[in-house]
Amino acid sequence: MPTEANARRIVLAVRPKGQPKPGDFRMEEVPMPTPGPGQVLLRVRYLSLDPYMRGRMDDRKSYAKPTPLGDVMGGENIAEVVSSNLSDYAVGDTVSSQTGWCTHAISDGTNLRKIDPKAAPVTTALGVLGMPGFTAYSGLFTIGKPLAGETVVVAAASGPVGSMVGQLANIVGARAVGIAGGPEKCTYVKEVLGFDEALNHHEADLPARLAAACPKGVDVYFENVGGAIWQAVLPLLNDFARVPVCGLIASYNGTAGSDPLATTMREVLARRLTLRGFINRDFAEQMPKFQREVSAWIAEGRIRYREDIVDGLEKAPEAFIGMLEGSNFGKLLVKVEAAAT
Amino acid sequence: MPTEANARRIVLAVRPKGQPKPGDFRMEEVPMPTPGPGQVLLRVRYLSLDPYMRGRMDDRKSYAKPTPLGDVMGGENIAEVVSSNLSDYAVGDTVSSQTGWCTHAISDGTNLRKIDPKAAPVTTALGVLGMPGFTAYSGLFTIGKPLAGETVVVAAASGPVGSMVGQLANIVGARAVGIAGGPEKCTYVKEVLGFDEALNHHEADLPARLAAACPKGVDVYFENVGGAIWQAVLPLLNDFARVPVCGLIASYNGTAGSDPLATTMREVLARRLTLRGFINRDFAEQMPKFQREVSAWIAEGRIRYREDIVDGLEKAPEAFIGMLEGSNFGKLLVKVEAAAT
Repeated sequence: MPTEANARRIVLAVRPKGQPKPGDFRMEEVPMPTPGPGQVLLRVRYLSLDPYMRGRMDDRKSYAKPTPLGDVMGGENIAEVVSSNLSDYAVGDTVSSQTGWCTHAISDGTNLRKIDPKAAPVTTALGVLGMPGFTAYSGLFTIGKPLAGETVVVAAASGPVGSMVGQLANIVGARAVGIAGGPEKCTYVKEVLGFDEALNHHEADLPARLAAACPKGVDVYFENVGGAIWQAVLPLLNDFARVPVCGLIASYNGTAGSDPLATTMREVLARRLTLRGFINRDFAEQMPKFQREVSAWIAEGRIRYREDIVDGLEKAPEAFIGMLEGSNFGKLLVKVEAAAT
Repeated sequence: MPTEANARRIVLAVRPKGQPKPGDFRMEEVPMPTPGPGQVLLRVRYLSLDPYMRGRMDDRKSYAKPTPLGDVMGGENIAEVVSSNLSDYAVGDTVSSQTGWCTHAISDGTNLRKIDPKAAPVTTALGVLGMPGFTAYSGLFTIGKPLAGETVVVAAASGPVGSMVGQLANIVGARAVGIAGGPEKCTYVKEVLGFDEALNHHEADLPARLAAACPKGVDVYFENVGGAIWQAVLPLLNDFARVPVCGLIASYNGTAGSDPLATTMREVLARRLTLRGFINRDFAEQMPKFQREVSAWIAEGRIRYREDIVDGLEKAPEAFIGMLEGSNFGKLLVKVEAAAT
């Protein structure tokens, strides 16, 4: 059993308006909890702080449930088992847990994962080998799919997700361009992490510098910031570029619903939407199958169609103008020589 | 040879500002062209008018090249070969061509496709069996991927693309909800095309009526309109919903760059971008592969990482607040009991 008489924890005291303030949180001391049957007592060693936690401080719907006021702030941590009534866990075991911002916690084993402290420093289970590293890995490889020679851009490039995105891009032979705040971080991104370019977003003219750093455009933009960075990247995206939307830290402190683009991007993230532009010719190889299937469905009466035919080439401008306002009813066609056919 | 002395064509006279006006176009009469070696003379029978043509009237970059001022308006048509110096084409053949808004045109065979007038009415090659039908088919099935029991929403539902989207959705067992302008179109959409619901966007409260028509939310939204319809659909999209972005007719007459959301959606369409939100746990099955690969890359020095460790649980709020402004450098962790470990 630990020697401490009391456990401490940090609870959400007030829902932050915009940027959180220290007074939005409250430290509480509570009597040291005692594990019941089927429970363990954990002593927390390291707590992970991650941007997604900002979303849980609001009470609007997102992919994470809001933290109730007065509840301990949630989050992943690395803990040691100090007392166990669970056969799977022995005193001294190191685990990752979801018990949040506290010194001690009771767990029934839910969301506990044993960590081997000899395999790697235990803190890596919260970083490069944990959720942030996995976020970069799964989003970049499953959605971004960078190819050798392509250009990958990521912001917050010295952070745990961004740093991983660029290094993984390099591993598959892509060019990695990072954006970070300040010269020290940029030096680290380029010299230690090995990104091909690192741009300081505190300096002026980021759009122009980013364009210069991406002479062949951008094929994958790993979005974890939003706002001005998105505006800088958007004009550089190549045809068929992929944008895994992982986070929008620039808008986490914003007021809900203020900006239609921010609202759209927030929903893309929270509901894991896929928005994908296309032109029919991108799928030209499907044309024979389409004509075969749809011809059969028309013959069976399962597909019906309607045409709106205007007589005479001279009517084309007027008919086109009306179409933009919805005045046609069915596929709009012009019969060019009304009299002769 | 045709009996007409002159050919007629419609050229772009002025780049439209907003909604096009008849004066933005000009009808020209020109001497009947004569096919040279390796050329055919076409007499155009039917011209297709499609919303994408509005984009070509502007001179900004899109997926379609701008029409030069004074040039014939481009577009697909159905034509008859009236004179041929090309061995593949005989007088009387029916073809689809890309020769645009004109009565007659010379072609060297580029973009010509023979149409069998006995297989189906020739006009279907411009509609249900042509580009609009194929747009619906390829975008819905390749990107939207509706499953039986899912809900598919499409606007301009009585038009050639929208009508096909809903009927194809029904064919695969999905529920089809259409939006159209006016009661006559809505009756057609529901009674003739067989959509499950049809909503008139000229009436008030579209968002509420759309929500009522989609009690299980929206799984696929086939986007061909943008603007207010997108705003009505967005709150209804389910987790993992797919949005094939095919067109944005609501903004075709808008001024470029006026609205950040419209700009983003226009680029999604024009460059066929994929924006896809994700949460790392969506890819949980990749976790073992991730840990195996990244552990090896760390051991090989190909992945480097940096931690920013703050001492003491009481520092967590301040550290979290700083992180949102980028003051951490590396993965932010809190060492909970600074003295005891």
